[in-house]
Amino acid sequence: MNKVILLNNRPVGKPVLSDFKFVTEAMPVPDDGEILLKTLYVSVDPYLRGRMNDAKSYVPAFQLNKPIQSGMIAEVTDSNHSGYKIGDIVSGNLEWKEYQVSTGKGLQVIHTADIYLTAYLGILGMTGLTAYLGLSEIAVPKPGETMIVSGAAGAVGSIAGQLGKIMGCRVVGITGSDQKVALLKSKFHFDEAINYKNTVDLTQSIKTACPDGVDIYFDNVGGKISDAVLNNINKHARIPVCGYISMYNETMQVLGPYVQPVLVSKSALMQGFIVGDFADKFAEAKKQLFNWLRDGKLTYHETIINGFEQIPQAFLGLFEGKNEGKMIVKI
Amino acid sequence: MNKVILLNNRPVGKPVLSDFKFVTEAMPVPDDGEILLKTLYVSVDPYLRGRMNDAKSYVPAFQLNKPIQSGMIAEVTDSNHSGYKIGDIVSGNLEWKEYQVSTGKGLQVIHTADIYLTAYLGILGMTGLTAYLGLSEIAVPKPGETMIVSGAAGAVGSIAGQLGKIMGCRVVGITGSDQKVALLKSKFHFDEAINYKNTVDLTQSIKTACPDGVDIYFDNVGGKISDAVLNNINKHARIPVCGYISMYNETMQVLGPYVQPVLVSKSALMQGFIVGDFADKFAEAKKQLFNWLRDGKLTYHETIINGFEQIPQAFLGLFEGKNEGKMIVKI
Repeated sequence: MNKVILLNNRPVGKPVLSDFKFVTEAMPVPDDGEILLKTLYVSVDPYLRGRMNDAKSYVPAFQLNKPIQSGMIAEVTDSNHSGYKIGDIVSGNLEWKEYQVSTGKGLQVIHTADIYLTAYLGILGMTGLTAYLGLSEIAVPKPGETMIVSGAAGAVGSIAGQLGKIMGCRVVGITGSDQKVALLKSKFHFDEAINYKNTVDLTQSIKTACPDGVDIYFDNVGGKISDAVLNNINKHARIPVCGYISMYNETMQVLGPYVQPVLVSKSALMQGFIVGDFADKFAEAKKQLFNWLRDGKLTYHETIINGFEQIPQAFLGLFEGKNEGKMIVKI
Repeated sequence: MNKVILLNNRPVGKPVLSDFKFVTEAMPVPDDGEILLKTLYVSVDPYLRGRMNDAKSYVPAFQLNKPIQSGMIAEVTDSNHSGYKIGDIVSGNLEWKEYQVSTGKGLQVIHTADIYLTAYLGILGMTGLTAYLGLSEIAVPKPGETMIVSGAAGAVGSIAGQLGKIMGCRVVGITGSDQKVALLKSKFHFDEAINYKNTVDLTQSIKTACPDGVDIYFDNVGGKISDAVLNNINKHARIPVCGYISMYNETMQVLGPYVQPVLVSKSALMQGFIVGDFADKFAEAKKQLFNWLRDGKLTYHETIINGFEQIPQAFLGLFEGKNEGKMIVKI
């Protein structure tokens, strides 16, 4: 029998294990023009939380009692499709199942000799593209500028920070533990990092860490952390807003200081985005990211959890900051 | 004796008449290389409120017991400067005085035959440039898009709306009286206008007035009006933030819904600006605005108050919505 994870309830506030349901189904059999895929790695990402709500957003909501989907890497174990042979490795947006059939639509064949496999869920996947295109298309860093990243030890944040360094910025990270502060400085070469959880006055801590002010704020978290960064932005600051994980599980509307006054007084730009906004740049961006990764200019960090049964728990861990770098489940 | 208006107190909250002080001084005499100017028209503008605070902003704060400055039109009544002759009319940022000397720095000579004089405080001055450059440089309207303007019957708003029409948009205004609603539709040819003061649910009123959603929001007011517009924006909306008059007189920090969620879900851009950000475009923009004004494609509306003594009162009126179009004091 084949194992499948369904959306059992739409979470109210913070998701819990009972929002997911494990079921079994008959082993799927590929039809003509289809392939059978065996799941190897599953990416869990904060944005999936939004799809669990019954609300219109930039991606359609998951349906109750249907399998959840996310970025995955899988192996072709049977093929009735001329474009795929047994043993091929693919990446794509797939369902949380041990095995599934596919027409191949939307899948990318991975040439495994090139690079480690899970890169295609991280630096060479949506994660890396999000970090790169948010910077190159919205922030447009100039050498010597100061860039600050929230959620800096997360999947996107840790890449965004490294890319900021490559682009010549002084890079400061905001994260949630001393261990992550150490990781940011030692492994990802951030110039400075702040543990917001043991900071009394975050506005002042940012000011100290950014003596020349903040030119670019790569925002993954929103909320009070972003309020504190906005208190420190320079004239003509650019703020790509990638996500707002601090608010994903709120059940009530959260209020904060209006941003209009600081945006006007600093002639600053704040732009929300999703990676798909820049789909026409994917090919070029992937090539650039691949080269930097191959040449050792970009490094990666993964938190790998083992076992299909652990997928929901891994997802829940994202909201407790349990991941360093990309959170991946190995099947 | 020469009459002068000084900043007497830094206003706390809404400015009051006692924040201004009328004094007299000896009639100024131009030195070598200087001219004597007689004030003809004084522009009062919401942004002056910010300069009355003792806070760093995009323009330096006014000093206590020093003359206030704003955009003005004046006549040269004496000249020891080879570039100016008696009778020349100039515009520039000058002091609230009946007469003043100037080296001519920053002044623009107006060719009075071209157009009505006060245009140089309105459509052909900072007001028009602000509306035009906020649209052309940030919003970049496309024909067929829906544009909404707050503070629509004000100086900048009434021009921004007309420019939106010229650029092919469907234009909706938000304003504060039925009389202004009528003005927007009849004189400025807005497609629709909303009196927010007699609207129970502004989000719904905007939805009704903008059945295709909002692609561009030219924001002059901030606060709850902007919250309601943000509830109606489309994917890839652009929001030039020109001002936030609803909050200029607040003494406490005002809280509102965070904008990050809607900016991300709509891949929307919000950018604060001041007209000086686009100084390299002034010449071209003025030429364009001049042509549209001359050809009757742009029209203007002024609220003219008479008398030097009325300048503070005219300024205070801006915060009560007493102006339709540009508020000007004729001396």
